[in-house]
Amino acid sequence: MSHYKLALLGFGNVGRALAELLLRKQDELKSNYDITFSVVAIGTGRRGFAVQPEGLDLSAVIEALQNGKTLAEFSAVPVTDAFDLIRKSGADVLFENTPVDYETGQPAIDHVKLAFEHGMHVSTANKGTVVHAYHELKSLAAQKDRQFFHESTVMDGAPIFSLFRSALPGAQLKSFKAVLNSTTNLILTRMESGESFDEAMRYAQQIGIAETDPSGDVDGWDAAIKIAALVTVLMDKPLKPAEIDRTGIRAITPKMVQDAKAQGKRYKLVCTAERHGETVRGKVAPELVPVSSPMYGLEGTTSIIQFSTDVLGELTLIENDPGPQTTAYGLLADFLNAVR
Amino acid sequence: MSHYKLALLGFGNVGRALAELLLRKQDELKSNYDITFSVVAIGTGRRGFAVQPEGLDLSAVIEALQNGKTLAEFSAVPVTDAFDLIRKSGADVLFENTPVDYETGQPAIDHVKLAFEHGMHVSTANKGTVVHAYHELKSLAAQKDRQFFHESTVMDGAPIFSLFRSALPGAQLKSFKAVLNSTTNLILTRMESGESFDEAMRYAQQIGIAETDPSGDVDGWDAAIKIAALVTVLMDKPLKPAEIDRTGIRAITPKMVQDAKAQGKRYKLVCTAERHGETVRGKVAPELVPVSSPMYGLEGTTSIIQFSTDVLGELTLIENDPGPQTTAYGLLADFLNAVR
Repeated sequence: MSHYKLALLGFGNVGRALAELLLRKQDELKSNYDITFSVVAIGTGRRGFAVQPEGLDLSAVIEALQNGKTLAEFSAVPVTDAFDLIRKSGADVLFENTPVDYETGQPAIDHVKLAFEHGMHVSTANKGTVVHAYHELKSLAAQKDRQFFHESTVMDGAPIFSLFRSALPGAQLKSFKAVLNSTTNLILTRMESGESFDEAMRYAQQIGIAETDPSGDVDGWDAAIKIAALVTVLMDKPLKPAEIDRTGIRAITPKMVQDAKAQGKRYKLVCTAERHGETVRGKVAPELVPVSSPMYGLEGTTSIIQFSTDVLGELTLIENDPGPQTTAYGLLADFLNAVR
Repeated sequence: MSHYKLALLGFGNVGRALAELLLRKQDELKSNYDITFSVVAIGTGRRGFAVQPEGLDLSAVIEALQNGKTLAEFSAVPVTDAFDLIRKSGADVLFENTPVDYETGQPAIDHVKLAFEHGMHVSTANKGTVVHAYHELKSLAAQKDRQFFHESTVMDGAPIFSLFRSALPGAQLKSFKAVLNSTTNLILTRMESGESFDEAMRYAQQIGIAETDPSGDVDGWDAAIKIAALVTVLMDKPLKPAEIDRTGIRAITPKMVQDAKAQGKRYKLVCTAERHGETVRGKVAPELVPVSSPMYGLEGTTSIIQFSTDVLGELTLIENDPGPQTTAYGLLADFLNAVR
């Protein structure tokens, strides 16, 4: 039986879903993997920090936060900030789930670095770390014989990175094609039923899928960041979001969507990346998708990626209706893959 | 640098594709995995056997077989049969690709057992071994600290078994839904264009997809065997093909197919398996698939599987246009996963 001390930094929807998943899977990890764990540190954005070497009572922490309390009462020692939490936690594994800064990837990158200095494995759902510092963090992790895993940064918990890492040895990724942004998918679907772009966008905002400032989604930035993360890791070419040829969906009119529908096609905001010799070209743009494509039937938050390799032809993965629970699973899988 | 001695038993389309893939990937395995190999034994169905401790010249063997020669001239020692080959090969890894016997799984099962006795890892594309002896072979392999891998037994080289083994730790498979038989898929597609069942079947036979006796495909036996293999491994419940509720496509008429088309639906021969308490129920039967399903657009030999787990909702894999090359990749992946 191996025991691991876990630190959860970031306790939004994903962090809380991870805490709940850990509770739910506790007995299974013990019986199937000979793994036990205690959560020795939790850091929140606005409710403070708790470090408890004996292990926190996760259910009590979740309840306290739901009741609007802070974490101070749970902490064995005073904790001033996230860095202080990492230093004092004594954890074996850090789950880094603080909010993403798309410009710099900070402070998440520094959190991850500090965790390696203290000998921890790191699992993160924070895309900024991969886009801005993947190769540096991988190399720091290797120096400490630790793992830097980030399954949940793209397509939630679907096993994209671990697929290539462990299930497809000897395969070379030549190109991929994907639909990775659900807001634009929802807007385009609503426009098929006759709504204008603005109406469809307001609907997406009302149900909480689109942000108040929707430009990250509708101008293709979110998709570009995901392409950058995938290319950086899976094709081993650092590519920045700004280097991606990017067209959003603002120019798509209801008439275009209706005409496409009449031809049996649908618009999707399609991400592509292709090797050309030593370089990789990334692109995001609206494309007409025919009914024969598995992209055609895509609804809601469902995402799809089609990998072209030198050994398997085309391999497609579809993740249906993901949410914070599936993102949390990606983090759990990273943990198990790092330690087993 | 680690060196491995490989034995290839069975040298039909898949065995030859594996030999060609090994040649093509030789330099990559050396530079990316620090792995070198030599093929020390090859066994064919009708062209004899060769054991060569110094390593066979693969290109020369392929050419000799293409020119109608036997393998005797390549062998350093006399070899009487497959068992003799395994005993004398001195190999570290056996690739078992002899023809499948659906009734008994033999002699492939005995080949695999003998390989374990001689301390080899085994990779096989032979479904009979999994359906008839999976748990026994797994346990024998474990006793010898060797691996028994079989990625290519279902969906060619697509990473189905390795996905659950290595990329989805802690996930429980609750059910799956799949289209795994290409002959029936082709026949149903042709019937949509107005052909009768018999006409469509004759076409499938002409292009070499369907067997002279097509009952294995059209009565759902091939699909049932694949369901049995998947349930046995991924749900850890030994299930025999005869235990699967099985309906083929003979009762589907052109009128039914046309009516479905008029409603925007297509018939597919769908495989399902579902946990019910401690048991698993398997079923293969024609189903009407709507346009919103990724099964709808399926053409040719493309296959699809939709996994329902307790942690990811639904995860779908599609393998486009597989062939002997992709089956060969599954065998190569097994080898790398066994030794790295």
